[in-house]
Amino acid sequence: MSDQPKAVVLLSGGLDSATTLAIAHEQGFASHALSFDYGQRHAAELNAAHRVAADLGVFEHKVLPLSLDDIGGSALTDQDIAVPEGGGEGIPVTYVPARNTVFLSLALGWAEVLGARDLFVGVNAVDYSGYPDCRPEFIAAFERLANLATRAGVEGGRFRIHAPLIEMSKAEIVRTGTRLGLDYGLTVSCYRADAEGLACGRCDSCRFRAQGFAEAGLSDPTRYRD
Amino acid sequence: MSDQPKAVVLLSGGLDSATTLAIAHEQGFASHALSFDYGQRHAAELNAAHRVAADLGVFEHKVLPLSLDDIGGSALTDQDIAVPEGGGEGIPVTYVPARNTVFLSLALGWAEVLGARDLFVGVNAVDYSGYPDCRPEFIAAFERLANLATRAGVEGGRFRIHAPLIEMSKAEIVRTGTRLGLDYGLTVSCYRADAEGLACGRCDSCRFRAQGFAEAGLSDPTRYRD
Repeated sequence: MSDQPKAVVLLSGGLDSATTLAIAHEQGFASHALSFDYGQRHAAELNAAHRVAADLGVFEHKVLPLSLDDIGGSALTDQDIAVPEGGGEGIPVTYVPARNTVFLSLALGWAEVLGARDLFVGVNAVDYSGYPDCRPEFIAAFERLANLATRAGVEGGRFRIHAPLIEMSKAEIVRTGTRLGLDYGLTVSCYRADAEGLACGRCDSCRFRAQGFAEAGLSDPTRYRD
Repeated sequence: MSDQPKAVVLLSGGLDSATTLAIAHEQGFASHALSFDYGQRHAAELNAAHRVAADLGVFEHKVLPLSLDDIGGSALTDQDIAVPEGGGEGIPVTYVPARNTVFLSLALGWAEVLGARDLFVGVNAVDYSGYPDCRPEFIAAFERLANLATRAGVEGGRFRIHAPLIEMSKAEIVRTGTRLGLDYGLTVSCYRADAEGLACGRCDSCRFRAQGFAEAGLSDPTRYRD
């Protein structure tokens, strides 16, 4: 592994981040996968992250506890806010305030310690569900910040934030992962997955995912509970 | 309190952040103080943060656990790296990778939940000890990011990152806090403070602090253990 450049890859256990990890490997990086235990409702996601990390052969997988539930403000971390089924206008209640900023910041700190200059994140602006921190201008602004914020940036290193899915449709994403041999049956996208990782089939995340497989003409390996 | 605008103030328990909190109050903000329990050696800092928050009358004080010690890479979080006494060239080993980026990101998330648009951070570029994430260009880049990263930014709110100490010398900082009635005896700056908050008098942080009181012509209330 020693001649491969290192990359920190944010890995949630969902479809997008698993595809991103497969892309990082295709590009020749030795991956250090980073997941967060942040009080998300769908803890089945973390189990999926472990499965994906093992299956794809990461160099290291770190799970950081993070008290986003102490901050609240999202249906994904606050039990008092219901997860919606209907799509709807604007930024949904599943938006977690500043989540990708927090995740990327911790990935940046770890990258600096590892001597990695490449960070991968599976954000997607097309089917992005209205989250502001999934847009290309957010990624560009974070990359700029990373190179001002760190010793590595000041001393001439250059961080790159890779968001390889950002302009892809869900169908393109699943086609890419399938071409790279990714087993999407390992991943869990559902906001309301149960302890076994079975999906509800009705939340925004389930609907985008199912639509992706349908548009790609691929069979959907998602395990639904109904 | 209801007619005062809310602000999230990063509060470490040291001299700079306590002064920043006093300035936020002078400017009329209702403060929501945020501290982190991040595996720092000087846990006495957190006790100081509680004392300062109580003394200055914050609206709320939240302490978030944060596993920066899982990431390592700094003398402040890694017991295997010694805290230096000698000053020296370049960015010191007490630099914590991406620390202010991580702290501001979590402050941003909490601010968004609270409906606050103002964040205060006690960074200082003059006596900044060589930390890259204490420079004005870092603060400007984070403010720009904040307005791209969040629902509030997208929907037309405007976050401001206040760094009122950024151009001040340590002497100006202690003069300002003293004018505002701040009791610096409550604060702990030492990187190697003991459990009672007694300072070593020799680390970089102690030296900058002592120099500040000397240059301001003010008596130094710091409790040293020697």
